[in-house]
Amino acid sequence: MTQEQKASPEQATIVLHSGDMDKVYSALIVANGALAMGMEASIYFTFWGLQRLEKGGLEKGPLSKMHLFGLGKWMIKQRMKKSNVAKLERLMNDFKTLGGRIIACEMTMDIMGIDADDLRQDWIDEYGAVGTYVQEARKSEITLFI
Amino acid sequence: MTQEQKASPEQATIVLHSGDMDKVYSALIVANGALAMGMEASIYFTFWGLQRLEKGGLEKGPLSKMHLFGLGKWMIKQRMKKSNVAKLERLMNDFKTLGGRIIACEMTMDIMGIDADDLRQDWIDEYGAVGTYVQEARKSEITLFI
Amino acid sequence: MTQEQKASPEQATIVLHSGDMDKVYSALIVANGALAMGMEASIYFTFWGLQRLEKGGLEKGPLSKMHLFGLGKWMIKQRMKKSNVAKLERLMNDFKTLGGRIIACEMTMDIMGIDADDLRQDWIDEYGAVGTYVQEARKSEITLFI
Repeated sequence: MTQEQKASPEQATIVLHSGDMDKVYSALIVANGALAMGMEASIYFTFWGLQRLEKGGLEKGPLSKMHLFGLGKWMIKQRMKKSNVAKLERLMNDFKTLGGRIIACEMTMDIMGIDADDLRQDWIDEYGAVGTYVQEARKSEITLFI
Repeated sequence: MTQEQKASPEQATIVLHSGDMDKVYSALIVANGALAMGMEASIYFTFWGLQRLEKGGLEKGPLSKMHLFGLGKWMIKQRMKKSNVAKLERLMNDFKTLGGRIIACEMTMDIMGIDADDLRQDWIDEYGAVGTYVQEARKSEITLFI
Repeated sequence: MTQEQKASPEQATIVLHSGDMDKVYSALIVANGALAMGMEASIYFTFWGLQRLEKGGLEKGPLSKMHLFGLGKWMIKQRMKKSNVAKLERLMNDFKTLGGRIIACEMTMDIMGIDADDLRQDWIDEYGAVGTYVQEARKSEITLFI
């Protein structure tokens, strides 16, 4: 570690490969927690994760996996409301407001034939490839693949 | 990194989000390996992972996924016995004996309606939220999401 | 961190637990990216990941999961060709050529009854257990569980 890197703020860098809503949830919770504690945070959306950046993609079946908890969807919704568990949309807004950075994987866009127009461009800070990720991850205290 | 942090022991901090037995297995193997090599280790049990901390949860269908190896359950059991592969229960006991720390995710307990009484409290060192995790992870050499 | 470790090159250390082709893909892309940027990289193949090191294992149904993107297999193949997305075999060859190290998990071989003869030994640098992994991971800037 060089002297300059030591002076830079701590960072969490997450690859979000999965599109499962419970994993998107975990990624945002961890990232927001890091931001709230004064760290920087980047999430690199790739593969199924990238699909959640499509317009309407974050809301699409947010409980699809959750109900595997063994509870019905209705009950989960009630519990989450009662527990004041934040919705994905709100978690994402918090993430952006707290200064979190979102990188969209260009290779995935290419394979899946997704245009930038299809994506929530207001959320995306950068369209990048693996080099962008490695550059961020190598100086991060927390690196996760979700 | 501050001067004090440099002097502190190395650490592995794992988020166990999955409840799949092969992943619980991997989490405990890595954590126990780190402990055996003089590191500290914490596992943060959340989502499906937390269900494995319920009373009887660790033994519940430990081979449910394993048999996907293409072998039958019976054969797997024979092989594991023959190979002296440790059972989950023993891995967990080793983890605790070696000084590993277990944090139970309070948010998951809240969503799933799990009380502390439902959990193996003798294993749990702390009931925490994301802040607890980030505090440990930011000073860890090894951070994994499993 | 000791003085010698500071002088050593940066490293990415990946546990490849999954055998899903999209995840093998991500593991190799990240590792090759790290290598291309002057870092060292090791991938520890375990559980379902190890099966991809069997002779013919890397080619076996490489698109099996990919078509879940919602596109048919034929269309995916066309897109990948058009997008010049590298095949797994080529990614693996690049990984080895760039100096990446492959560690095969001995415990998995034992459980699954796999002999070294069944594996692509020309790719494997070492047969190891968790201690081998921890030794590499503790000095790595990037640690991922895939």
